[in-house]
Amino acid sequence: MTEHEAMRRALELAALWPGGGPNPRVGCVLLAPDGAVLAEGHHRGAGTTHAEVDALQRAVAAHGAGAARGATAVVTLEPCNHHGRTGPCVEALLDAGVTRVVYGQQDPNPSAAGGSARLRAAGVDVVGGMLAAEARSLNPTWTRAVGLGRPVVTWKLAGSLDGRSAAADGTSRWISGRSARTDAHRLRAAVDAVMVGTGTVAVDDPDLTVRHVPLDGPPPERVVVGLRDLPAASRLARAAAQGERVHHVRTHDPHAALEALWYLEHRHVLLEGGPTLAAAFWRAGLVDEVVAYVAPVLLGLGTPAVGDLGIGTVADAARLDLLDVTVLPVAEQGGVQDPTDTTTVRLTLRPRKES
Amino acid sequence: MTEHEAMRRALELAALWPGGGPNPRVGCVLLAPDGAVLAEGHHRGAGTTHAEVDALQRAVAAHGAGAARGATAVVTLEPCNHHGRTGPCVEALLDAGVTRVVYGQQDPNPSAAGGSARLRAAGVDVVGGMLAAEARSLNPTWTRAVGLGRPVVTWKLAGSLDGRSAAADGTSRWISGRSARTDAHRLRAAVDAVMVGTGTVAVDDPDLTVRHVPLDGPPPERVVVGLRDLPAASRLARAAAQGERVHHVRTHDPHAALEALWYLEHRHVLLEGGPTLAAAFWRAGLVDEVVAYVAPVLLGLGTPAVGDLGIGTVADAARLDLLDVTVLPVAEQGGVQDPTDTTTVRLTLRPRKES
Repeated sequence: MTEHEAMRRALELAALWPGGGPNPRVGCVLLAPDGAVLAEGHHRGAGTTHAEVDALQRAVAAHGAGAARGATAVVTLEPCNHHGRTGPCVEALLDAGVTRVVYGQQDPNPSAAGGSARLRAAGVDVVGGMLAAEARSLNPTWTRAVGLGRPVVTWKLAGSLDGRSAAADGTSRWISGRSARTDAHRLRAAVDAVMVGTGTVAVDDPDLTVRHVPLDGPPPERVVVGLRDLPAASRLARAAAQGERVHHVRTHDPHAALEALWYLEHRHVLLEGGPTLAAAFWRAGLVDEVVAYVAPVLLGLGTPAVGDLGIGTVADAARLDLLDVTVLPVAEQGGVQDPTDTTTVRLTLRPRKES
Repeated sequence: MTEHEAMRRALELAALWPGGGPNPRVGCVLLAPDGAVLAEGHHRGAGTTHAEVDALQRAVAAHGAGAARGATAVVTLEPCNHHGRTGPCVEALLDAGVTRVVYGQQDPNPSAAGGSARLRAAGVDVVGGMLAAEARSLNPTWTRAVGLGRPVVTWKLAGSLDGRSAAADGTSRWISGRSARTDAHRLRAAVDAVMVGTGTVAVDDPDLTVRHVPLDGPPPERVVVGLRDLPAASRLARAAAQGERVHHVRTHDPHAALEALWYLEHRHVLLEGGPTLAAAFWRAGLVDEVVAYVAPVLLGLGTPAVGDLGIGTVADAARLDLLDVTVLPVAEQGGVQDPTDTTTVRLTLRPRKES
């Protein structure tokens, strides 16, 4: 197998784990000097062995001690050089006698970087950047978060065509259609934490669980941001009283809230509101993506879906780039559309960088 | 040529005129008893001859007086039986000695109906409904307006993702992207009248002309609804002072406004706002279609794009069926996107009938 073929295989191996949480998806193939595959490995989530160590262990199990001596490690991400829950991969590679390392994506993590320099200093032949774009696309959100040094924030926005999240009397069930509600659970299932403000707990009493969709890993952590206590009768307070994990970050400062979530090893946070909390994140420049569910419904009056963003004039309007538009259809039963349901238009957007 | 082939040809002839205004698009083919085509005709707009008369005149011009004696008229719409600007077609057909009439769509106009009964009473063989769906689709808005006995109303709605039509300081240029603004001119070009309230004249000072797109017929009439006088310095007041046609309907009652436009022979009206006038039309049940331009822009505060629709609770929300979603792209020059422009999402919707 060529090194290029081995990298393609390592990309496949990396994709076997669905990803999420503090660690990226990584795959590794160990090649003998004659190009034979000694072993394959990949990462399987926080606290489990890294891909390189996984492959080294399998090589020893299959071929005996010293199996990787003189081998080439082909790995989708630059081997790490830091002590986390597991030892640094560079030490494991050196200990095993690997003499050549080919990697895809350079490690964007400042605390993990230096892996290739350390390997080169020890006399290992190192080549980086092979199929790097494919390797990065395995972990777009992780790469972004690590580069930012904070969790990536996706803001979920839902409302009527005229920008209302509730009618004049405060009722809001349901503005969006059923498939949009299911889609919002899919969003939750894809992140590490779901975040609301204390005001939303008081008004909407959400439970922030994932329903209607499968979960590949642990459910996202439920996070409340704000200084107020949660009402004792709220779903989240009752869940916490029953020993379920609900994280209350007692701050009004979006930066402080994200720092707390970062140290909880969350790399992707879904901001579900309310408008005050979301506006605070927006004004702080801490929104990386917006998913907006626009229902073909008019309310006229009602609660604005978006709060004060500190924008006074149209020249300062917050402009976003539209990445995707999807129509979420009306639910059908036996080929008949439910007349009480509605389509919903989902827009995925990214805030434009300040010029 | 068979009668079916003649009807296909009549549909083609009808489509030669782009349509609009008080009259439908109609085509006619006159067949001799042996199936030879004696003449073709079609309508070309208000005040010009109807399709049947056009064909009869051409038959005489080509073949001499009496050419249509014993002929079959194949016509996309049931021949009219009323005296408008031109005489009733049934009399012209009878005078010419036509002995058989095959038509597509039945005339939905109560004052024009009775054409086939009158022909039958005179001994003419009449067949209706051939390719009727195709015939109706030539004139969907006209058919709808004539059925309703009032102009069809399309409400143009434009705003930010959070439902604002202007920022906190009242500025609104530009929320939508350039291609959306051009598209809005295309909407104007397709209707008989463009309507705003006196409040919009005072605040936005529109001129309501069609720009940036070709006009197939006369420009739409410019209509202002409301009791207030137009500010003398407003574009519309100055246009009127220069002799241009600007119709001021001095009423607050949407029904009365549409009645006035109906007697001006307008069949399709574009309602461009403001929110108060639009809400009055909505509450009166007089909105037939909504075209919403949603810009990927957030404003937070600002002028709501939609006024009070009289909706207090979400169960009474105004639900619409989504007919189309189109992304109007960013303007490009030499393959480079203009960084100051924005995409806009256009939603075309139809209010759901009350259940």
